Amino acid sequence: MSPALFHLSDVKGKNVVVIDILRATSTICTALAHGVSSVIPVDNIDDAIRLKEKGYITAGERNGEKVAGFDMGNSPFESMNEKIQGRKMALTTTNGTKCVNMSREAEAKTIIIGSFLNAAKVIDFLKNDNEDVILFCAGWKDKVNLEDTLYAGYIASHLLEKGNSEIDSTNMAIDVFKSSNGDFQQYLMKSSHYYRLSKFHFDEDLKFCLQTDVYNILPILVENEIKI
Amino acid sequence: MSPALFHLSDVKGKNVVVIDILRATSTICTALAHGVSSVIPVDNIDDAIRLKEKGYITAGERNGEKVAGFDMGNSPFESMNEKIQGRKMALTTTNGTKCVNMSREAEAKTIIIGSFLNAAKVIDFLKNDNEDVILFCAGWKDKVNLEDTLYAGYIASHLLEKGNSEIDSTNMAIDVFKSSNGDFQQYLMKSSHYYRLSKFHFDEDLKFCLQTDVYNILPILVENEIKI
Repeated sequence: MSPALFHLSDVKGKNVVVIDILRATSTICTALAHGVSSVIPVDNIDDAIRLKEKGYITAGERNGEKVAGFDMGNSPFESMNEKIQGRKMALTTTNGTKCVNMSREAEAKTIIIGSFLNAAKVIDFLKNDNEDVILFCAGWKDKVNLEDTLYAGYIASHLLEKGNSEIDSTNMAIDVFKSSNGDFQQYLMKSSHYYRLSKFHFDEDLKFCLQTDVYNILPILVENEIKI
Repeated sequence: MSPALFHLSDVKGKNVVVIDILRATSTICTALAHGVSSVIPVDNIDDAIRLKEKGYITAGERNGEKVAGFDMGNSPFESMNEKIQGRKMALTTTNGTKCVNMSREAEAKTIIIGSFLNAAKVIDFLKNDNEDVILFCAGWKDKVNLEDTLYAGYIASHLLEKGNSEIDSTNMAIDVFKSSNGDFQQYLMKSSHYYRLSKFHFDEDLKFCLQTDVYNILPILVENEIKI
């Protein structure tokens, strides 16, 4: 439910789905679906600037706003651009990109980028691979958030045949998903992130990121690059 | 939702409700309602043993089991005993007692012991005092748990007139509470704690701790003692 709780789970050898719906993992999926060759998650702005000098597109935000000097922010719409096709992207965000690196350090088996946009593909992979799964919610600065938990509940509901788990946080996520009654946008109107980001004309991003199964792709981390 | 997330909240000057439904805060309420003069929450077993030498009743558990050499474990039924009337109790538990001490260190205004057993009284106090509230779930070894979150949602539902909050964890707790449809026992059958403690013939404790408004008391921390 939060990076601050990640150390409590035994991650080694398990499949990890990194979840930062608003907006890192949605943007990674969109960028890869629109032709970016790979995304490098970087923890800090300096590392991204160094990669820019090597020809990478730089993308990312701090506190929801585009980083000064970067090519783009963290909106998925910015990645729908012919100019970025075939190029590599260095992405740094407040919450999501560090979770990818935490999962690598914890020796996950496969690190998968999860968003509503590619949910069906994520579910298919997890079902077929039949390994234990960690649904890793990026949250907001270590606080739990509704949208990532909602997505975790969506995935868990599709994986658990009996409909619940022996793990309490998983059951809570399923309760959150069920509470949405399938109308994610209406449900998230009450979330803190909605309030925080609405000032950046965020409504279109929100609407886009809550669509299921737009892209039939499975972005995974290969060495230090996210690829499809 | 967890002691590992407590530092993310600004607690100073706010009312904190410490929540460890199974079973520390339920047991504290029961003991005080049945005549114990005060409960001292202690972090470790050694401190409790030192207080035993000064005449305190020692109570508590580690990993759900009574501590060797203590007078009693952590079941509320053990506190329904004439022999403990008027005496002081030193209590140490895996999760709940440390939260009392964390709240004190964070300079809370009032530290309240919350359980279903005294829920109406807790709600009355919080409404009348009209101060910001932290609902502090003890969880299980830093993991979030269903029963404490359920209670937090119960309290929040009674405090928030519009029915939701701008804080995502509060909204999640409310979703969990609503998902129970008011049948807490049936709902918690899926919880991890139920599995963990059922081996200790825990069913009666569970049933007892999920009753609302049995005791019309408000245990609060006064200096280092919990009193009514």
